[in-house]
Amino acid sequence: MKHPVELRHASRLVNHGPTVLVSTRHGERRNVMAAAWSMPVEFTPPRIAVVIDKSTYTRELVLASGMLALNLPCAALADVTYTVGTLSGRDDGAADKFERFGIDHFDGPELGLPLVAGCVAWMECKVLREPHVEAAYDTFFVEVVSAQADTRVFANGRWAFTDQNAALHTLHHLGAGAFARAGAVVQATVLTTKD
Amino acid sequence: MKHPVELRHASRLVNHGPTVLVSTRHGERRNVMAAAWSMPVEFTPPRIAVVIDKSTYTRELVLASGMLALNLPCAALADVTYTVGTLSGRDDGAADKFERFGIDHFDGPELGLPLVAGCVAWMECKVLREPHVEAAYDTFFVEVVSAQADTRVFANGRWAFTDQNAALHTLHHLGAGAFARAGAVVQATVLTTKD
Repeated sequence: MKHPVELRHASRLVNHGPTVLVSTRHGERRNVMAAAWSMPVEFTPPRIAVVIDKSTYTRELVLASGMLALNLPCAALADVTYTVGTLSGRDDGAADKFERFGIDHFDGPELGLPLVAGCVAWMECKVLREPHVEAAYDTFFVEVVSAQADTRVFANGRWAFTDQNAALHTLHHLGAGAFARAGAVVQATVLTTKD
Repeated sequence: MKHPVELRHASRLVNHGPTVLVSTRHGERRNVMAAAWSMPVEFTPPRIAVVIDKSTYTRELVLASGMLALNLPCAALADVTYTVGTLSGRDDGAADKFERFGIDHFDGPELGLPLVAGCVAWMECKVLREPHVEAAYDTFFVEVVSAQADTRVFANGRWAFTDQNAALHTLHHLGAGAFARAGAVVQATVLTTKD
């Protein structure tokens, strides 16, 4: 089900504004947090912006390692998503969030970052350091170096959300643990000029 | 139906990654385009990042005026959204996109920007100039100075998407005019630690 996505299609994975899980590793330390705030900024090369608050353990690991992974959770992972978005990975002495919550993961193909099993897409990214916007807006720009997706719901460079694969639909955080599921697809057509 | 939204809740309007319409005015010139790529960067003050390509007429008007409005189209406006995202407002001699496509609009309360009728939320914003990231990533940071929403679908600082108001659900662009509608709401709960 997991299949590589061409890098020129990577930005499409987050084109529709899903909540992502940001996973990180630096040496022995690793973490995973939810981030509702991300967006593509370029298709080629595939570049994405993501907001990572100054208070987070994730930010510490991103700055130390210069890399992060974006995992796209689906409806089936709503509780995991909310949980890792609510609790910090910096708790003294506690096991990391992967262990504490029994979150299965596998290694990314390019950077070896921990990718969350059960998600529907995964991207490993290198940080394009921009200290001013990191400080002023908590915004990190990254470039995607590997991309994969679950072929049951993303194929040929396109998401394919249907009533039959609802548990695999991406999540869009409304607040306080309520997520809109990417649902019914509307196909628009270009209007003709009124004249 | 249109009601002011407290500025501390403004970022929630785009927390779930909807496609937006960016409307602009500078003197007699005005325009509206679709932008799939935006995200909040701060709740207080309410700040948002939005990607506006160098080739667009909108960017010219944003740089000239220092302001822009973000309108949130709903499923009923899918064709309008796709249309203004596909065609440029810079066509020589043509009427502007509001006139060409019969797009109703009204003036924003703070900045007098043209807001698109039939949308479900509207924000007027001032640009926080960041020439480097504008050039390198086409990314504009803005601060919201007025916010309104349609009370049928956003009330008390929360989106309320139900099966009964499907035509008012926000749009999330998958590519090539296919939009996922923000659909079924999943309420997550925090997991307990495995130990």
